[in-house]
Formats: sequence, C-alpha cells, structure tokens
Amino acid sequence: MTETLEHRLQALEDREAIRELIASYGPLADSGDAAGVAALWAEDGSYGVVGFAAAQGREQVAGLISGEFHQALMQAGCAHLLGPVAITLDGDHATARGHSVVLRHTDTGFEAYRVSANRWELARIEGAWCVTHRENALLDGQEAARALLSPPAGHRR
Amino acid sequence: MTETLEHRLQALEDREAIRELIASYGPLADSGDAAGVAALWAEDGSYGVVGFAAAQGREQVAGLISGEFHQALMQAGCAHLLGPVAITLDGDHATARGHSVVLRHTDTGFEAYRVSANRWELARIEGAWCVTHRENALLDGQEAARALLSPPAGHRR
Amino acid sequence: MTETLEHRLQALEDREAIRELIASYGPLADSGDAAGVAALWAEDGSYGVVGFAAAQGREQVAGLISGEFHQALMQAGCAHLLGPVAITLDGDHATARGHSVVLRHTDTGFEAYRVSANRWELARIEGAWCVTHRENALLDGQEAARALLSPPAGHRR
Repeated sequence: MTETLEHRLQALEDREAIRELIASYGPLADSGDAAGVAALWAEDGSYGVVGFAAAQGREQVAGLISGEFHQALMQAGCAHLLGPVAITLDGDHATARGHSVVLRHTDTGFEAYRVSANRWELARIEGAWCVTHRENALLDGQEAARALLSPPAGHRR
Repeated sequence: MTETLEHRLQALEDREAIRELIASYGPLADSGDAAGVAALWAEDGSYGVVGFAAAQGREQVAGLISGEFHQALMQAGCAHLLGPVAITLDGDHATARGHSVVLRHTDTGFEAYRVSANRWELARIEGAWCVTHRENALLDGQEAARALLSPPAGHRR
Repeated sequence: MTETLEHRLQALEDREAIRELIASYGPLADSGDAAGVAALWAEDGSYGVVGFAAAQGREQVAGLISGEFHQALMQAGCAHLLGPVAITLDGDHATARGHSVVLRHTDTGFEAYRVSANRWELARIEGAWCVTHRENALLDGQEAARALLSPPAGHRR
C-alpha cells in the first residue's frame, strides 16, 4: 500500500514540478533573467518559434532573452502571460500544451502582440524536470499552430 | 495514519484531475478536436453560453466546435485562453470558477473578442471527473456573469 | 518512510492551498465580494499597487473592492485575469510571482486596461495560508515591475 501511495505521490510531484517549471518562464523572461530562463531547459534543449527564431542549447535560449528584440520589448513594457497547461506524463518524459500571449505596452495602452500555441517536451534529467524542446507558433490561422495543441498520440481521453 | 494520508492524497489527485480537465479545454478547442472536447463532458452534460448558445449532451457540445462559428474563428486564428480556476471539492462533486478570454486574429492584429465568467460543475462518474455543466457569460457588466464567479453557498473562506 | 511521505504530501498541499488562494482572487474581485477578497489576506496584511493605491489591513483591502473605482469597473464589465504563479515555499512562508491583466469592457469591445507584475508574500497563520503582502506594478517599462518577477534570493534554479 505504502508503495502504491508513493507512486501516486510521485505522479503528483512530477506534475507539480512541470507546472512550476512552465509557470516560471513568464516571470523569468519579463524580469530579463536570461540565465534563469536558460536553466529551465536541458543542456541541449531547444526552442523553436515558427517563422521567427530557433535556439539550440542553453546559450542560445539565453540569447533570446538577452537579445535586442526581447530587451526592446522589456524596455517598452511586456508580459509573457501563459495559460494553464494540459500535462501528459509518461515516466521520465512529459508533454505540456497551452497558450501564451505576449502583451506589450504602447503609446495607446497595452495590446496582445503575439498569441501563440505551445508544445513543451520535457524530461527528467538527473532527477530534475527540464524542457527538452518548446515549439511555439502564432495562432493566426496556420495549421502548424493548431497541431501543437493536439494531445500526444495515444493520449486522447 | 496511512488511511488519512490516502484521503489527503486523494483530495490532491481530485483537484489535479479537475485542473487538468479544464486546462485541456482550450488546447482541444483551438485544435478543432470536437470529439476531444465532448469527451470532457458527461454523457448528458451541458454547456450554456448566456445569450449565445446552449448544448445538451456530448453530441451538441461537439457541435459547438465542429460548427460554422467556431470553424471560422479557427481559420482566422483564435485562442481560448483560460485563467486559473478556484476549485471547491465536495466528495464526488466539484465546482470550479474562473475567467476565459477568446483572443482572435484580425487584419490589424489580435483582439480580446470575448471575456467571460465561467462556472464549471463537475462530477466523478465511473471513477473519472467530467463536466456536468459549464455556464459562461460575458463580463460586459451583466450581473449574471458576476454571479457565476461567486463561491458556492457555504464555501466562503 | 510514512513520515517522509507525509512531508512530501504536506509540501504539495501547501502549494495547492497557495495556488487556490491566488486563483480565488480574480473570481472574488470580479463578483464584487469585498469581504471574500479581504479574507484572503492576513489581518494585518497589505496590498500595494505602485502609483495607484496602498491598503493596510483587511478593511482597507476590502475597500479596494467596495470603492468607487472598482465598482465602476465592474459595472462596465471587467476581468481580473491572472496567469499561473511560480511558487517558492519556505516552511510557513512562501512567495508567488506572476502576471495579472485587467480586461475591461468598453463601447468598442474589450481592452487590456492594466497589465501588471505581481509578487505575493504569503504565510501560514493558525494553520491557513494567507497573503501578508501583495505588490503590483504596471509592466509599462518600469524597473520596479520587472523586479517583482525575480526569484527570491537564494532560490534560483
């Protein structure tokens, strides 16, 4: 019984760790913490933004935050707001799907600058969950964005 | 002691299952997965959108996604972004309250098309949590919307 | 082993209680439940909104909801949408960081009226988690807002 309880507890802890990891992204990005954002990724993790950028490895992920584009956004004022994520857990691997919205401050107020679909691939590496790949695509009608939000094969309810 | 632990664990698992269920809604809706959305509901579950639509049973819930209105939204580009939900658990029943925002892509960028209050009624049926009723109303100043966000009777802190 | 399990369970329960507390804010605020919002705070808890308002103690927190400004927002239609929070737990104290967006209804539709950074300081008092301080600042480019989103000292990943 105790072992069963421990397995159940472990599954909840895994989901909690993944949710916390992803919930940390926005605050770290909007405080300009490039190293903090990079540390959410695996050493060789990657981040692809369809039609915009691709980063391979922590150094390049950090570069998305320390780079000119993000720094200009931050100076103007921005929020990388995420929605809740649907998490599919599979041992030491997991997938999370959800929305992200970049709100930015302009002369006339705040606007929803980017509204995207996200698929996070995660793995437990040396005991800690981290991002192995994040794929982001604008929900501007493109099929690629909708596809990111579909449940992983074999995990439909 | 072990039994007490199990009860506490079960309560966390219930809340996690409910959060996951609701977090799945947006990704399923925005990927056009009508059957997937319908499967979140109980067989005879319902979904009411004040002044807009009412669906009774899974087939009609699926129809909200496969229908012309939602399909046109998806083609233009849309995100059904939810906020976090406040969950009140009561044995095999639960209530969750939270916001939803439909963002849509237009010629001039993204706009917050609908901003709503939601009250989700949920039940554990054959061991799995599902939606028995979701009520949604635009937060355009109407009292009906504000009422959906109030805690269930007897559950104020 | 059982004790270890209980400690792990307790940590999950603490994080769940904190998430629920914060997830309750928006629904309570947007249903105009001033007493309900105040009850999320400690007796002598406080709420600071940079450049806008400061409330000390539950009565003043309630006053932010019952006051003219919030009541007018509610009559027009508003949503206090929060993003997910990154939670740092430290015994009977915790910090949570995340975004909030006030959407309001206008003659031409909904707009993102305020987009803010938030830092919640929380404590377990007489067995229940409550807010001891919430600090909110507009993400309009000011450094004060970005600073609220940084991890607490010693808690970088």
